[in-house]
Amino acid sequence: MIIQMKLDATKKQYEKITKDFRNKGYQIKDVSSNTIFVFGLIGDTKSLTENDIFVYEGVAKVTRIQTPFKKASRRLSKTDSVIKIGSDVKIGGGNFQIIAGPCSVESEDQFRIIAKTIKDAGGKIIRGGSYKPRTSPYSFQGLEKKGLEIMRKISNEFGLKIVSEIPSSDKLEEFERLVDMIQVGARNMQNFYLLKELGKSKKPIILKRGLSSTIEEWLLAAEYIIHHGNPNVILCERGIRTFENYTRNTLDLSAVLAVKELSHLPIIVDPSHASGKNWMVEKLSLAAVSVGSDGVMIEIHNDPETALSDGAQSLNLEQYIKTENKISKFREMLNLKT
Amino acid sequence: MIIQMKLDATKKQYEKITKDFRNKGYQIKDVSSNTIFVFGLIGDTKSLTENDIFVYEGVAKVTRIQTPFKKASRRLSKTDSVIKIGSDVKIGGGNFQIIAGPCSVESEDQFRIIAKTIKDAGGKIIRGGSYKPRTSPYSFQGLEKKGLEIMRKISNEFGLKIVSEIPSSDKLEEFERLVDMIQVGARNMQNFYLLKELGKSKKPIILKRGLSSTIEEWLLAAEYIIHHGNPNVILCERGIRTFENYTRNTLDLSAVLAVKELSHLPIIVDPSHASGKNWMVEKLSLAAVSVGSDGVMIEIHNDPETALSDGAQSLNLEQYIKTENKISKFREMLNLKT
Amino acid sequence: MIIQMKLDATKKQYEKITKDFRNKGYQIKDVSSNTIFVFGLIGDTKSLTENDIFVYEGVAKVTRIQTPFKKASRRLSKTDSVIKIGSDVKIGGGNFQIIAGPCSVESEDQFRIIAKTIKDAGGKIIRGGSYKPRTSPYSFQGLEKKGLEIMRKISNEFGLKIVSEIPSSDKLEEFERLVDMIQVGARNMQNFYLLKELGKSKKPIILKRGLSSTIEEWLLAAEYIIHHGNPNVILCERGIRTFENYTRNTLDLSAVLAVKELSHLPIIVDPSHASGKNWMVEKLSLAAVSVGSDGVMIEIHNDPETALSDGAQSLNLEQYIKTENKISKFREMLNLKT
Amino acid sequence: MIIQMKLDATKKQYEKITKDFRNKGYQIKDVSSNTIFVFGLIGDTKSLTENDIFVYEGVAKVTRIQTPFKKASRRLSKTDSVIKIGSDVKIGGGNFQIIAGPCSVESEDQFRIIAKTIKDAGGKIIRGGSYKPRTSPYSFQGLEKKGLEIMRKISNEFGLKIVSEIPSSDKLEEFERLVDMIQVGARNMQNFYLLKELGKSKKPIILKRGLSSTIEEWLLAAEYIIHHGNPNVILCERGIRTFENYTRNTLDLSAVLAVKELSHLPIIVDPSHASGKNWMVEKLSLAAVSVGSDGVMIEIHNDPETALSDGAQSLNLEQYIKTENKISKFREMLNLKT
Repeated sequence: MIIQMKLDATKKQYEKITKDFRNKGYQIKDVSSNTIFVFGLIGDTKSLTENDIFVYEGVAKVTRIQTPFKKASRRLSKTDSVIKIGSDVKIGGGNFQIIAGPCSVESEDQFRIIAKTIKDAGGKIIRGGSYKPRTSPYSFQGLEKKGLEIMRKISNEFGLKIVSEIPSSDKLEEFERLVDMIQVGARNMQNFYLLKELGKSKKPIILKRGLSSTIEEWLLAAEYIIHHGNPNVILCERGIRTFENYTRNTLDLSAVLAVKELSHLPIIVDPSHASGKNWMVEKLSLAAVSVGSDGVMIEIHNDPETALSDGAQSLNLEQYIKTENKISKFREMLNLKT
Repeated sequence: MIIQMKLDATKKQYEKITKDFRNKGYQIKDVSSNTIFVFGLIGDTKSLTENDIFVYEGVAKVTRIQTPFKKASRRLSKTDSVIKIGSDVKIGGGNFQIIAGPCSVESEDQFRIIAKTIKDAGGKIIRGGSYKPRTSPYSFQGLEKKGLEIMRKISNEFGLKIVSEIPSSDKLEEFERLVDMIQVGARNMQNFYLLKELGKSKKPIILKRGLSSTIEEWLLAAEYIIHHGNPNVILCERGIRTFENYTRNTLDLSAVLAVKELSHLPIIVDPSHASGKNWMVEKLSLAAVSVGSDGVMIEIHNDPETALSDGAQSLNLEQYIKTENKISKFREMLNLKT
Repeated sequence: MIIQMKLDATKKQYEKITKDFRNKGYQIKDVSSNTIFVFGLIGDTKSLTENDIFVYEGVAKVTRIQTPFKKASRRLSKTDSVIKIGSDVKIGGGNFQIIAGPCSVESEDQFRIIAKTIKDAGGKIIRGGSYKPRTSPYSFQGLEKKGLEIMRKISNEFGLKIVSEIPSSDKLEEFERLVDMIQVGARNMQNFYLLKELGKSKKPIILKRGLSSTIEEWLLAAEYIIHHGNPNVILCERGIRTFENYTRNTLDLSAVLAVKELSHLPIIVDPSHASGKNWMVEKLSLAAVSVGSDGVMIEIHNDPETALSDGAQSLNLEQYIKTENKISKFREMLNLKT
Repeated sequence: MIIQMKLDATKKQYEKITKDFRNKGYQIKDVSSNTIFVFGLIGDTKSLTENDIFVYEGVAKVTRIQTPFKKASRRLSKTDSVIKIGSDVKIGGGNFQIIAGPCSVESEDQFRIIAKTIKDAGGKIIRGGSYKPRTSPYSFQGLEKKGLEIMRKISNEFGLKIVSEIPSSDKLEEFERLVDMIQVGARNMQNFYLLKELGKSKKPIILKRGLSSTIEEWLLAAEYIIHHGNPNVILCERGIRTFENYTRNTLDLSAVLAVKELSHLPIIVDPSHASGKNWMVEKLSLAAVSVGSDGVMIEIHNDPETALSDGAQSLNLEQYIKTENKISKFREMLNLKT
């Protein structure tokens, strides 16, 4: 860490803070000019926060040298992590998955039609929402446990893996039993209590980026899960909140490149939630492939007009098949492994 | 709701959507011009989302007329709600509270010194964090249950009410037993599962605004709690995330005015988390009073330099007493009830 | 326009506003429910602003039906506009250009080396900054007129078109004489005085998106130029400002799709300024192609380490050639016209 | 400046960059740990940009120690600057001004009624827009030169100073002749060409904060004006763009406190543009006083319903008088100098 003192900081203040940290076992290297006190704090600083420094009188600015995440860091591994879902499906390190499915599971019939379409198109993982995080208490909240049971039953019929969003740590036992991969929604990305509990699970976790999270905060959220015992984390970029309202969120594709630089974890992209517009999904998916995403997550529905949630951003089944084809051909052309 | 069709929408598309909604019991009023189909959808639209409309082919734009929140709405009550903490402390409707306390409870001794200072200064409510939501898994995570017990014991000694942040719904029983008021942190504002569970409680809830939440989303979060049975909600503005980094967040004081217009619920302001700078706290508190806030929430510490979290934004006890005095005199001058 | 009155608006207020607008020649269509007054205002509303409505007592919300831009609107033309630079270079309608060049023109020698590289790689347009908009007055401000003269001379040698950023309308005569295409920088996107003056020019204009502009504001800026007489506008997405600091700005590729839907104008992408990182440029360029961009604008430099500005986001010449090749092959594979 | 190399940076890269800067006359102080190269660059770094460093291979992060602004910096002067408008009106250093007036000058009669009201209320400066920056080319663009002449004539009648927004540097001569104080609008805050030209003027300049400018960029814009010769700069906070749409912008009152810490320049607040809602203006003005603003800028109109622009955020004359009174009494109570 580099600590810069205020212009009017006194020699005494400088001596107090440097002495204190020396006593705590850190090495101090002075970088002061003749107008300002500055020093480097060398040692294990990952448990220090900026506030631990700012409380000293005279501190103006703190700059971190080490990244605050370790186990999620590219520093740990030059090789891309490959996450296994069950024994035979992989994401990362060249393994690309198109994860499709309805925003909400509505019935066995609905889920079977969609599952069949995905299976026929060569898909391996189906998504579905059963505990729905809805902005309004008056919106459809999902089938809850019943929905997960439908998902389990139908995906067993077709040999698909399932992923669904967990609403709270007290549902973890239920999710452990019924799903293959657990999704942490954007609104729960910094639900640290939940993240810790998920660290005790062995299931792969899809960790969506928070609505206004920085990449660093996102990787620290992943670090929580890994640090508490579960290394199977897949990041999912789903758009961030900006002043632009034409799209639901602003898809940040440079985040895919940044994550590949900063971390060894796989990262996928959700163009459906990012844009909120089904007609943008195909092209944004190709763009995601272009920047090196390890997968895409797409909302589809057998009959979007009657969908109980988020129909507007769902592809119908025909559109899904067309999009799936486009993505696959695109990856083939680019000579990307599947 | 007003629904506007695309420029190239067909008469058939217009007829399909209007017929469907008429069949669902809504009244349709046409507002089309000669170049574009537009119509009003009249009836109970609070359970409709924009997506329920957008799934129809040809829809370009949906505008809501009713506010999506009802029970939190000013429409429900012209009178400001007054929330009681215990039998004798009130917030709202002219009742103003300065809620102070340490970011983290660290020990009985620490909490007793701070509690005594608050009591002596005339304060009625003390805050303290015991389950700390920390961005990094390597930062101090709080004393957890032990901290709540310390808070309970010490506040009983001094006759203070306590408020602390709940990490997850599975700690609700513990909080019911140990604290007087439950805080929902900014990162949990859209933890809908938690909000529903808090609806079953009778404790007053301080609902912090999410890091990037709109005022409408915030009031919908309050609506969740009220709708599920608990009307005792106090909103807390704590700054929103913007591109400006000089302050930790950007305090949005116009949100206080907006909430007073849109809702009957009390609203308080947290200048400590908003700015992240203890030297800004006093002036931002006075500004909060100026716009009509029903209280302020301030971080204080007996020894900020050794605080285990967020020392930089904490006032020391002397500064706190000075600030408390300033605020009280300021409100007196303005002839505001206390 | 749809105008919604406040919940407590009176019948008298409703009658006043509707009568006034009827008198101004608008048609009024009522959409009121039994709890709230709402009406449509039909006629030519493009010169009305929301504020023209809000000044009436009792108005709660105004929703525009017509897009506020006309001449830039897709409504005007289903066919994509093709903009000509000189007699033989085209952008739009399938015509794709890679525009490369240094952030700042530094000398004849530097510009010649770069121009030769671009020419050899098959490029047709070279960019170069000569009046540099720099955040600090202490940074290099560009060679100004001298730089434009160098650009003109060298590009004539190689038969390239040149584009450079105009700092102010009082330099318009100079730019008319020396460059082939005029760039409006992000910071000038809402310099309406300049936009009007550019409307009197016949040169093609590259209009960069403002740092925090909505797509609607951007298209209105284009509308200024077209409305004042110059239809030759090319939009350029260059990232928007968000809370994310890892990249210089956040590239908004969904804006390319949105612009294609809302407007007939060509749109190109500048991955260099968006990301601020040269190692992201190639992949973001491919992503831009994937979503249908009509070109990319890339910063290159013969010796980035000695560049007088923005070296960090510049490709060196070797990297440029490699990137140019990748983009061209990528477009070939996708069967896109060049 | 502190320069941190990448984790995989080589010793050779470290030696190259440190040698180069030593050769340029900077002092190098090493702060490396055993895992990462870090060094301080000591000397006059204000003309260096981060990019000048990033172009070296192996650089990961650059942290500035000196503020990039000098003449606008608090470091230059502990005393608050007092800016004179004409010989007898002052802003800063305890001198507070309420600047009121119409969004647009519409006619002599209109401006006279408003000027008289301001004069009678004890005001000394009147604002009025004559070259209006309007988002749409179809909105009223102002009376231009004619409007300035009206302002000059009427303010001479009443002995008021006038301030108006300049659209472009080629109108500077006109503004020099006709107004007492020149306003740089938010959209022109980084029109560096204009800022340089204003440096040649002797008129006081009101520099509005850009829609999405950081405080550092804003102070650098002030630095441009001062550096080019004109020290008479007054900053004006007018809200920043965020995702919140209830208010037109988000008023950032902590920016007032930040500016007072970082700079000696006066700062005023414009609650009218920030909120876009006239009913918020009074309370936000009091909040601005509470944080130490040196003035407020308020839009008023004799008949807001017929105003040619921005009526919705204007106070009528009666409201203005009431607000003026409230602010004055508020400042008296607080024992603030006027």
